[in-house]
Amino acid sequence: MPKTKISYAPSVRRLPSYLHIIRQAQRAGDYYISGTVIAQELNLEPIQVRKDLAITGIIGKPKKGYPVEALVAAIEHYLGWDEIHEAVLLGAGNLGSALLGYQEFQLHGLHFVAAFDTDPGKIGGHIHGVPILSMDTVEQAIKSLKAEIAVLTVPSPQAQATAETLVRAGIASIWNFTNTKLKVADDIIVQREDLSSGYALLSVMMQKVKGRLE
Amino acid sequence: MPKTKISYAPSVRRLPSYLHIIRQAQRAGDYYISGTVIAQELNLEPIQVRKDLAITGIIGKPKKGYPVEALVAAIEHYLGWDEIHEAVLLGAGNLGSALLGYQEFQLHGLHFVAAFDTDPGKIGGHIHGVPILSMDTVEQAIKSLKAEIAVLTVPSPQAQATAETLVRAGIASIWNFTNTKLKVADDIIVQREDLSSGYALLSVMMQKVKGRLE
Repeated sequence: MPKTKISYAPSVRRLPSYLHIIRQAQRAGDYYISGTVIAQELNLEPIQVRKDLAITGIIGKPKKGYPVEALVAAIEHYLGWDEIHEAVLLGAGNLGSALLGYQEFQLHGLHFVAAFDTDPGKIGGHIHGVPILSMDTVEQAIKSLKAEIAVLTVPSPQAQATAETLVRAGIASIWNFTNTKLKVADDIIVQREDLSSGYALLSVMMQKVKGRLE
Repeated sequence: MPKTKISYAPSVRRLPSYLHIIRQAQRAGDYYISGTVIAQELNLEPIQVRKDLAITGIIGKPKKGYPVEALVAAIEHYLGWDEIHEAVLLGAGNLGSALLGYQEFQLHGLHFVAAFDTDPGKIGGHIHGVPILSMDTVEQAIKSLKAEIAVLTVPSPQAQATAETLVRAGIASIWNFTNTKLKVADDIIVQREDLSSGYALLSVMMQKVKGRLE
């Protein structure tokens, strides 16, 4: 997907943690927040925070910092989190259920309209208030639900076939939590989440502390 | 935690996906794999793949690429994934249960010896073969289990207090899946996992496709 490649991905990845801290300041009644304060909270360099925030188009004022309300609005607008994005989830197992109940997503405009599973014990019920439908009905249901995003938490062997069904149903954005590298058309956006990535970082820090790495 | 900060974190984050592809080649009976093949599989630039792999100390041969077996060993050794790391999990809810059952972790030496929860219905039972113990016994149990890593999946309001108990019990590495920025001593390694980070990337790609970003 060359056209949807993002060169400043690490900066984008940090925006939600900035948003979290800025919202805390907002709730505390602060009108301004400095890049230095945000940097301290997150163990980052202040220059890094200012560079990251600049991609949303907002520049702080010397000494005062950033106006809190405008900063929240700028980050949310940049990410498109000031609008509702309707989503479906495929595979309501443990991970899928956790994502359906992850409250922070609601703050980010991510709204689950339905989840799909193959388990007859789950179909017809609700998980975290989201109706569970039969996996057999995916294509028709998604067409009528007009969902924009599909979150893929099926077992990895089912990932490719499920993705193909999603694309046929009109889904253009897939958040892929499986181990499978999906083969889909170039105009389909796929963000793959790999839980092992964070574990790799933790592991390298542990190796450093043990003196096994420089 | 300045001393455990990693400047090449994006490279480390990519290592597990390289490992996944290289192991596939190994299972297919290949003796060599080229950086270009790995790059194609992951939509990366070949030069990026070669730079990333170089941090593990292994250099490919012109035209032949990397010897598969040595490359797997080099990545695993760099990450410390050629050794067993015993871990406990705190909070056996949906996300916690998903992590206990995440099979790929076993390939990475991550071995859960126990999980802790407050739910009497779970205590005394097993989830994915891991015994569930009472949260009241954390400190004593961890001391006797000699676990190295704690995976934190408790509700966010309990995160700080639980982390303090973990540190008292001798845990030096915390993989934090909560929204809470933990305040712990500088010598404690904390890797915070933010599910919203990946959603931010997906969102920015969607905004680009819609023409709302350059």
